[in-house]
Amino acid sequence: MSSAAPVITFLSDYGHGDEFVGVCHGVIARRCPQARIIDIAHGIPRHDIRVGALTLASALAFMPAGIHLAVVDPEVGASGHNARRAVALRTAQEGRMFVGPDNGLLALACEQLGGVVEAVDIGRSGERLEPVSSTFQGRDIFAPVAAALAAGEPLAAVGEPLAVEELRGLELPTARAQADGLLTHVLHVDHFGNLTLDATHAQLTAAGVRLGTALSVKGSTDTRMGRYVSTFADVPAGELLLYEDARRMAAVAVNRGSAAESLGAGLDDELLLAPA
Amino acid sequence: MSSAAPVITFLSDYGHGDEFVGVCHGVIARRCPQARIIDIAHGIPRHDIRVGALTLASALAFMPAGIHLAVVDPEVGASGHNARRAVALRTAQEGRMFVGPDNGLLALACEQLGGVVEAVDIGRSGERLEPVSSTFQGRDIFAPVAAALAAGEPLAAVGEPLAVEELRGLELPTARAQADGLLTHVLHVDHFGNLTLDATHAQLTAAGVRLGTALSVKGSTDTRMGRYVSTFADVPAGELLLYEDARRMAAVAVNRGSAAESLGAGLDDELLLAPA
Amino acid sequence: MSSAAPVITFLSDYGHGDEFVGVCHGVIARRCPQARIIDIAHGIPRHDIRVGALTLASALAFMPAGIHLAVVDPEVGASGHNARRAVALRTAQEGRMFVGPDNGLLALACEQLGGVVEAVDIGRSGERLEPVSSTFQGRDIFAPVAAALAAGEPLAAVGEPLAVEELRGLELPTARAQADGLLTHVLHVDHFGNLTLDATHAQLTAAGVRLGTALSVKGSTDTRMGRYVSTFADVPAGELLLYEDARRMAAVAVNRGSAAESLGAGLDDELLLAPA
Repeated sequence: MSSAAPVITFLSDYGHGDEFVGVCHGVIARRCPQARIIDIAHGIPRHDIRVGALTLASALAFMPAGIHLAVVDPEVGASGHNARRAVALRTAQEGRMFVGPDNGLLALACEQLGGVVEAVDIGRSGERLEPVSSTFQGRDIFAPVAAALAAGEPLAAVGEPLAVEELRGLELPTARAQADGLLTHVLHVDHFGNLTLDATHAQLTAAGVRLGTALSVKGSTDTRMGRYVSTFADVPAGELLLYEDARRMAAVAVNRGSAAESLGAGLDDELLLAPA
Repeated sequence: MSSAAPVITFLSDYGHGDEFVGVCHGVIARRCPQARIIDIAHGIPRHDIRVGALTLASALAFMPAGIHLAVVDPEVGASGHNARRAVALRTAQEGRMFVGPDNGLLALACEQLGGVVEAVDIGRSGERLEPVSSTFQGRDIFAPVAAALAAGEPLAAVGEPLAVEELRGLELPTARAQADGLLTHVLHVDHFGNLTLDATHAQLTAAGVRLGTALSVKGSTDTRMGRYVSTFADVPAGELLLYEDARRMAAVAVNRGSAAESLGAGLDDELLLAPA
Repeated sequence: MSSAAPVITFLSDYGHGDEFVGVCHGVIARRCPQARIIDIAHGIPRHDIRVGALTLASALAFMPAGIHLAVVDPEVGASGHNARRAVALRTAQEGRMFVGPDNGLLALACEQLGGVVEAVDIGRSGERLEPVSSTFQGRDIFAPVAAALAAGEPLAAVGEPLAVEELRGLELPTARAQADGLLTHVLHVDHFGNLTLDATHAQLTAAGVRLGTALSVKGSTDTRMGRYVSTFADVPAGELLLYEDARRMAAVAVNRGSAAESLGAGLDDELLLAPA
């Protein structure tokens, strides 16, 4: 592989049990044999656009610039008021290109790169594989368009022009400083029960929660004491901790346990963090 | 990677928990470093030759022509009356080559390509890795032979000639038009409880079941009403639907539910479809 | 891909549900676009250094020589008495290089290759991605260093010299010949309930357990009769068997059943094998 091989990154909620990911790889290899595919993740919870968007945005800084294909698409094949556009986008910075459904999945990643400067609707792209399936447009629309872009087709050649203002955004909760602490929300619960919050280290510091200090975490059913530390090994097994996770977001965990269970907290729940 | 890199596609029931898939990749990379490997799927249910054969056949149209390695091999290592051959095959159309156990796994894919025109028995291939394991012949026989073919060895050089007539086929149930509707069989139940049937859109139309119309589905324990639609979003949550799945086979599902549970139906069960 | 593309093999306990593996692929592709990555396995049980070490050692013979990246790292980010080094190593034979935590994970693989002849501590490597995360050093330390080595950097350039004697080894139980048979230990239980033991074919033969003969297996709660055979299909469903597994270690299984359940045996338990 020469260092000039075009890169397509690929994120989806297809999972690894079925052939969906493999079939998209085949489609790309037929249209653009020289493309290198990097699978970011295919274990996004089914239809969870928000987790997909957060994962794509946080992974992007570690990916070579290229074509970024992402498919989490609960409205696939729908028509009428449920319909969503299929789009290909180019961002202001680095000239990266994104291909996927226009449902907010691509929004955070594009914002990070200075926003979208060019957009096309690929729902009727000449690159589509006919007949287009109602349930598997990763194969029939998104993968072929991504491959065409990797092969050097300009954006304008793979779809119809679309005003950037028409693209859908993604609404996320926002951590809020209150008199009694920082009110955060659970953005993601992983399969260990670790809770990713909508707060950064800077916000925690501003709220008086400092690295190394004790804090109270008030969840939906419980108040627990913990410490704001660097890593799990900094507290004994079974104890609650606050840490900055690999995505540089605040997260709550129980060392060798489940914070979700311990706090009775789940997706979108509020957690109040305060210096103890 | 130049566009002329040989392609090996790979399908198995090895799963992703263990190192079996990775070890086969290593074996291929040692014998034919320039080969590109496309993993179609490794989540075929353990030992389920039929699901493997259906998956391979439906994925093939989306794969570059090349060497198609497939391993679902319940009789691996057996001798005597349980023994199965290990084979490499060339098809009439596109000159694609297949490598795997001779147990029906490759049969549907080869039929699609005009049938097999050349076959060799690779059980004693000079390409084997010695000593050949009794439990992991993907590593010791199938992967090395696929890699040798990708490296340009002719079929005749990797095994002993075998009469095409001796290859095992695959028996599948067949949907049957009856006075009261189309009698179908469940070929596959996925992990959402969606049921893939042995019927095509043309057979449904012939039986009077038309896109958009109501139908009754008589399963093993229940009769349910549904509609024949394009996609899940076309019916409310909890309702039964009939649709053409991504493999272009008729399938029964419950939007955001499980058709298998709702109908009490499983693998090989009969479902009678009739206009309501 | 030219046959001279450098190879990085990658083993971890990251699983396939999250983006950890994909992000490491991206990091490698940015630093060394020409590297080819072979994923050995990412389903190592979380934090299980021993299973990781055994898997890496047994897979290595089937991998092209190259850079071998492995991350099973329960002490990641810890400081003080919990701290472990991050290291890059070169072995006596084949000049293979290994990158990972210094916790025993790399020990068996390096022993197989004549031991380590050069070692560096990469904890403060100039190749690190800053800021280094406390929880995801696969991304921030191990993957970038592996990529730098693949790009041709000498070992001495990616870390500080480290005396080979300071590297941690891995303690494994040892099968022991007794008057009443061979006392073995369970090294690994796979998800089918098959038990890998710390015994080889040679040790079994020396203890009088010969291929084809009946034997008794005395587990923690039960004594069972079985046969020492080549493959599962050699005994009826539900019966116990002893066989040499794909890693060339003795293993106990129940055909279409679970030996772990049948014998009430788990990790590290003793099993006594004796001719019946």
